[in-house]
Amino acid sequence: MSEIEFIVRDARSSDCHSIHSLICELAEYEKMPDQVEITAERLKEDGFGPDHQPRFHCFVVENIAEKTIVGFLLYVQKYSTWKGPFLWMEDLYIQPKYRRFGLGRSLVCTLIRRAHQLQMPRIEWNVLGWNHLAREFYHNKLGAIDLTHDDDWLTYRLTRNRFENLLQLNPSNVRIDEK
Amino acid sequence: MSEIEFIVRDARSSDCHSIHSLICELAEYEKMPDQVEITAERLKEDGFGPDHQPRFHCFVVENIAEKTIVGFLLYVQKYSTWKGPFLWMEDLYIQPKYRRFGLGRSLVCTLIRRAHQLQMPRIEWNVLGWNHLAREFYHNKLGAIDLTHDDDWLTYRLTRNRFENLLQLNPSNVRIDEK
Repeated sequence: MSEIEFIVRDARSSDCHSIHSLICELAEYEKMPDQVEITAERLKEDGFGPDHQPRFHCFVVENIAEKTIVGFLLYVQKYSTWKGPFLWMEDLYIQPKYRRFGLGRSLVCTLIRRAHQLQMPRIEWNVLGWNHLAREFYHNKLGAIDLTHDDDWLTYRLTRNRFENLLQLNPSNVRIDEK
Repeated sequence: MSEIEFIVRDARSSDCHSIHSLICELAEYEKMPDQVEITAERLKEDGFGPDHQPRFHCFVVENIAEKTIVGFLLYVQKYSTWKGPFLWMEDLYIQPKYRRFGLGRSLVCTLIRRAHQLQMPRIEWNVLGWNHLAREFYHNKLGAIDLTHDDDWLTYRLTRNRFENLLQLNPSNVRIDEK
């Protein structure tokens, strides 16, 4: 039997500095390092703050010998009007020198176990088109489908810099009753 | 001044039967009517149940004269590891005979106002590639960007029928410490 060298577990508040470093490493890998605005403090507040439900959930991989976090998987609950709640995998990352040990597979397996326990109908996530290694794993090993090409779904984004200009879109025969 | 004929407001538990009918109409329009598994009761429980935070939020358009719901917009909070929480528009639908009155625009405007109030960095959503009218509105009127083509993001899905087969993916040198 092989020896246990790594543990996958739910993240704790004290992991947020490590998770933040890994988020920055992943953004670097994705060629968009200047996009990261989040801080470790914000992650603590959003994921483990005392006054609201967690805004995300996260698993980490811990190297037992070195007591370091070498990878993470961050997910949230989303909602389908056809199927109800399901899980959305926002990020999956393993540090380069720890790849090829199956740690990414272990994180995905943990998410699938969670989805199975919660009786979720599906898991969804984004992947960059050029990341062929990841796509091959998702397609061949998991049997996932590519909604973009198989079902013709596209993803759109509207950013904050456009909001103020658009607040007046409302036609005059409609009253908005706001909370 | 034109007379107010419609109201946009937050959905209530008693709207769930109407919202369910509109979800079914939208699935029909999207050519996937057999995909709807949700029930009106499930929507009530998930959106307005007493024992948990709402799993979704929803605006409806009410026809004042007829006291009927003629459209809806359903959204959830998602999470970006780069920017923090943001809003995801899951569905937007107006009944065919009420189109061209600006009601879809009014629903989107209400979501933008909500995002602005909550200081959200972005709103995201999916659209079917063949729905050129919608894409033109999102692109030309809102100034939204198409992440699929502009940033090369694809969306993947893993469905429940694959979960059981995949629970054993974990490599032997990693221990999963589950809650």
